[in-house]
Amino acid sequence: MGKLVIVGTVAFDAIETPFGKTDKILGGAATYIGFSAANFDNVDAAAVSVVGGDFPQEYLDLLTERKVSIEGVEIIKNGKTFFWSGKYHNDMNSRDTLVTELNVLEKFNPVVPEGYKDAEVVMLGNLHPAVQQGVLNQMTNKPKLSILDTMNFWMDIAMDDLKAVIKNVDVITINDEEARQLSGEYSLVVAAREIHKMGPKFVVIKKGEHGALLFHNDNMFYAPALPLEEVFDPTGAGDTFAGGFAGYLAKTSDFSFENMKRAVIYGSTLASFCVEKFGTERMQNLTDKEIYKRLDQFKSLTQFDIELN
Amino acid sequence: MGKLVIVGTVAFDAIETPFGKTDKILGGAATYIGFSAANFDNVDAAAVSVVGGDFPQEYLDLLTERKVSIEGVEIIKNGKTFFWSGKYHNDMNSRDTLVTELNVLEKFNPVVPEGYKDAEVVMLGNLHPAVQQGVLNQMTNKPKLSILDTMNFWMDIAMDDLKAVIKNVDVITINDEEARQLSGEYSLVVAAREIHKMGPKFVVIKKGEHGALLFHNDNMFYAPALPLEEVFDPTGAGDTFAGGFAGYLAKTSDFSFENMKRAVIYGSTLASFCVEKFGTERMQNLTDKEIYKRLDQFKSLTQFDIELN
Repeated sequence: MGKLVIVGTVAFDAIETPFGKTDKILGGAATYIGFSAANFDNVDAAAVSVVGGDFPQEYLDLLTERKVSIEGVEIIKNGKTFFWSGKYHNDMNSRDTLVTELNVLEKFNPVVPEGYKDAEVVMLGNLHPAVQQGVLNQMTNKPKLSILDTMNFWMDIAMDDLKAVIKNVDVITINDEEARQLSGEYSLVVAAREIHKMGPKFVVIKKGEHGALLFHNDNMFYAPALPLEEVFDPTGAGDTFAGGFAGYLAKTSDFSFENMKRAVIYGSTLASFCVEKFGTERMQNLTDKEIYKRLDQFKSLTQFDIELN
Repeated sequence: MGKLVIVGTVAFDAIETPFGKTDKILGGAATYIGFSAANFDNVDAAAVSVVGGDFPQEYLDLLTERKVSIEGVEIIKNGKTFFWSGKYHNDMNSRDTLVTELNVLEKFNPVVPEGYKDAEVVMLGNLHPAVQQGVLNQMTNKPKLSILDTMNFWMDIAMDDLKAVIKNVDVITINDEEARQLSGEYSLVVAAREIHKMGPKFVVIKKGEHGALLFHNDNMFYAPALPLEEVFDPTGAGDTFAGGFAGYLAKTSDFSFENMKRAVIYGSTLASFCVEKFGTERMQNLTDKEIYKRLDQFKSLTQFDIELN
């Protein structure tokens, strides 16, 4: 039973895409990571987050039903839940943030439940890097694998804190533009090498509809995103990828490059479902059969057979 | 001995990138396609093109040395060779055209040499679609495989001619933006399906640094571009891809989807060399050993092993 600690937001999102718009619905990095990691047997996952008194119990129940512990989700009765609202452009590759209300997140002081302080895998969702470091500090045993997700926002306002926590993690997941910003290098190969030097042994560069790259020393692996007929809502795809990646590694307890490749494929596979409906809807009732079928599509999509002389 | 007819420009290019600039050097679609296809044994390739009296014999000799027949390259003594000049932006993904002098290309009337009118494979490089159709009309036997490359320019000024020739080819290679323009569909999956309906059984969508997609009925295959430390000059990468694709198919005479996948990988592999130096420089003396080594890198980059229940 591999324990997995997931730190990140549990939030309200309001989303507008060319296909429609939602009121406040369930969102947040820890939510998407949790739903995604929940697809792996033998993973004991716990979300560490904070919500306000306005957060519906039924949303928390959705996590519990998927066997994600919410023991570490603090409820601040007289506070309001983090709220994000965004509108996607027609090409679905860019979006405008309409509203960001930090609310209870502003003073978020994550507390890892006692029973999870010895977790093998820690997934640090996108949060202030000092908060991410605070979670690592609470682990009694050094995790076998710590994974950090971050974004350009923290590079702009908290680069020193970010560099400090990056030094202490095994894997960083980051998008292509952010990898360029963090390293000051345009080529992703060179950028990954520079980021290696900052600490992480594994660098995962997410390229959205163009897939994801995994770097480890001189090894490189490329998982495409599954080309889809329709991308309905990209919200949470990156977190779903991270949840699949972390969940598979917590399940298998094998942190070799070969197994990391599989973890990237699982991440891409799960992310390909996430974008098919608004918010977390598609992730709430995914079956193993659906996942296996799509993994098979990934195989057809990428595998070839060339005999080399 | 598979015969391959290559139709396209043989030209002068002047290129400026962040790494430097060239005077007039050897360029043109048929040149890049020819150099690339020349890497396959048992392919008897012939370039069909036109140049002016100003075109150096030594440039033509480079093709001959690589065993690409120039019997079909007309030399118009009192004409000037097609000249293109362009400047790449810092990200290397976009460029400005500085000069386009059509010169002898303006009245280009390609003539397929007698000995190649029964070629198995015809590669129609990017030219006016009526010129591409004119070449198909000269083939005495219907080619086993005809491949057409085109661009947005022809969609803007000669869409009817383009649709007419597309109807008669087996494979179309096109970039992502052009696939969207041609089909009116944003999703590349849907775009490929619409383009299928226009005629081609196989649709190859080139995504530059993000690789290439191959579509055939409900089958889909994705070859990434090899992530490189440095892209020195992207000129000719698409044509080099097409040359590798066509050359491998002419060599193997196997036009199944499985073999097309291999052809796409060979195309991507050869294109990854092309961008390492200015113009055709890197393609002039590529060894089999270098190619096999890079194919091996493509395998490591993309192949994984997941057991499905």
